[in-house]
Amino acid sequence: MCEANVYMIKGEEEEMIMEAVDTVEPEDDGLKLTSIFGEQKFLNARIHSLALVDHKIFLKE
Amino acid sequence: MCEANVYMIKGEEEEMIMEAVDTVEPEDDGLKLTSIFGEQKFLNARIHSLALVDHKIFLKE
Repeated sequence: MCEANVYMIKGEEEEMIMEAVDTVEPEDDGLKLTSIFGEQKFLNARIHSLALVDHKIFLKE
Repeated sequence: MCEANVYMIKGEEEEMIMEAVDTVEPEDDGLKLTSIFGEQKFLNARIHSLALVDHKIFLKE
C-alpha cells in the first residue's frame, strides 16, 4: 500500500495529524483527508510538500 | 516503493506530467518535482489533490 502520514508544519515543528492517509482533497476552505480505513478529517490547511518514499505529506495552515 | 505519478488537471482532462515522483516541494512561484530516479521538473502549479493508493498526485495551474 502507498498511504502516507500527514504532518502539520508549525514553525520549526511537525505535528502528526493522521496516519495511513489515502486521499487528500480540497473541500470548502480546507482539506478533507481520508485514510485507508475510511476515517475522515477536515482541516483548514493547504498541502505544503510531499515526501512519498518517506510516506510523508506536509500541510501548512 | 511509494512513488506516484503526477497529473495536471486541465479542465476536464488530466495530463500526465511526470512518473515515479518522490518529493514535491514549493519553489519560487511553483513546485519542484523530483522522481525516484533523481530527475527534476519545475512547474508553475499548485498541488490540488492526492490519491496515494492509486499512486496519483493532481496539480492545477
